[in-house]
Amino acid sequence: MKLVRYGARGAEKPGLIDADGDIRDLSAHVPDIAGDVLANLDRLESIDPASLPLVEGNPRYGACVGQIGKFICIGLNYSDHAAESGMAVPPEPVIFAKYTSAVCGPNDDIIIPRGSEKTDWEVELAFVIGKPGKYIAEADAMDHVAGFCVCNDVSERAYQTERSGQWSKGKSSDNFGPIGPWLVTRDEVANPNDLHMWLKVNGAQMQNGSTNTMVYQIPYLVSYLSQFFTLHPGDVISTGTPPGVGLGMKPPRYLKAGDVVELGIEGLGDQRQTCVNDQ
Amino acid sequence: MKLVRYGARGAEKPGLIDADGDIRDLSAHVPDIAGDVLANLDRLESIDPASLPLVEGNPRYGACVGQIGKFICIGLNYSDHAAESGMAVPPEPVIFAKYTSAVCGPNDDIIIPRGSEKTDWEVELAFVIGKPGKYIAEADAMDHVAGFCVCNDVSERAYQTERSGQWSKGKSSDNFGPIGPWLVTRDEVANPNDLHMWLKVNGAQMQNGSTNTMVYQIPYLVSYLSQFFTLHPGDVISTGTPPGVGLGMKPPRYLKAGDVVELGIEGLGDQRQTCVNDQ
Repeated sequence: MKLVRYGARGAEKPGLIDADGDIRDLSAHVPDIAGDVLANLDRLESIDPASLPLVEGNPRYGACVGQIGKFICIGLNYSDHAAESGMAVPPEPVIFAKYTSAVCGPNDDIIIPRGSEKTDWEVELAFVIGKPGKYIAEADAMDHVAGFCVCNDVSERAYQTERSGQWSKGKSSDNFGPIGPWLVTRDEVANPNDLHMWLKVNGAQMQNGSTNTMVYQIPYLVSYLSQFFTLHPGDVISTGTPPGVGLGMKPPRYLKAGDVVELGIEGLGDQRQTCVNDQ
Repeated sequence: MKLVRYGARGAEKPGLIDADGDIRDLSAHVPDIAGDVLANLDRLESIDPASLPLVEGNPRYGACVGQIGKFICIGLNYSDHAAESGMAVPPEPVIFAKYTSAVCGPNDDIIIPRGSEKTDWEVELAFVIGKPGKYIAEADAMDHVAGFCVCNDVSERAYQTERSGQWSKGKSSDNFGPIGPWLVTRDEVANPNDLHMWLKVNGAQMQNGSTNTMVYQIPYLVSYLSQFFTLHPGDVISTGTPPGVGLGMKPPRYLKAGDVVELGIEGLGDQRQTCVNDQ
């Protein structure tokens, strides 16, 4: 299934994408694509999409998961991206937090904070927890994954690394966390470690990679993270970015108002964001 | 007012502490001590506590705020604590994230993660946002604060600093975020920058300080944080710890199963936690 949340910000309804690519309304069946609903996706599998109300028009897509608990990002998880950032591949996963107030829809504007000069892009494969767990064995890890989505891990590099430590400061500005358009359930992704991923700015290709160069892969990450804390349904883990971010260019190239960022991952859909200055 | 959440974990009810120190049930008036309720505390001010049902017995206290969005911690915000940690006072506030799945009640057990050898304590003054805002002027900052509470910023030092970067990894284990017992509204705290704070382990005094040695004070922090992202009602900001943590002792002294941690801040109540090994 391709699950979505659609409608005005803060008032998104749950839906799914039918065989024709149209949105069907799930709100008579579940309150949201979130929490316990993710732990019980089999209930949705049994619904005939044709029996659901067709959503007319072209509503806004919201973030494909609601009520996110933890938004965990994995840093430097592609060896060639670590190299372009001038950093070594870490001996174990680097994790950092993106505050959930940064979460937005896949096509919402990228808001450049006042005074920011180093707002950057990162196409990433994110996965979403569907079953709670702690101290999860790597062999059981995929049972805890509800599905996958595209994430743009928007980052302000000066805030991240030049403003007194800890990356969360540069990862959590409003709208720095577009996820979606779809939460694609695990059964529809044959191999999450072999997905083409790309990102363009104003039509020019910036990132063009594959999840097959990821250092720490998803089963390992699930097991690893669960040694530190319980993973809960609705937790989102974004797994790092391949080369091609603005920081890695010579000279670096950052986003400015009017730039259009497009990105996508094979089978998981596309995002399109316009950059605007914060008012 | 002293606002509380009481009852079984995950099913806490809202309440307040009356003049006799007893809990009165607020659940007929508000669904939780969270979000919009914090933005409209004047509605609660008008209620006569004597008109509310008295809560019998000694129920568990839950975290004094529910549905926390951002849990922001300020690092190295007491100059003498920075010194004992072997780090310089940062040129601007260090912020790091404690994942909200770590939040628990003030007297819940401290759960020592499997294999952990460096679980440590940190008594901290936390404040809670009551009014949303972004790019907040320092002069207006206190209008955005709903109230204050005690926080034990429980920390695993090896996870925090020896396991591939970014402190969140050592700050977010289950039950590493006891807050409460009370959310004390702003009007009841004459000067949040002059509060005695203390922490004992097995009855021995470990921390004995005052918020008057805080480097970056609350109005500055509110303004500073709001340059990076919108602050929302229910966001919790914990402002750092004075000297006396286990890491700073020679040799360092960490928590083990059976240890009892007691802590408190003048006017904000006390916490008491027993350390247990995770099962």
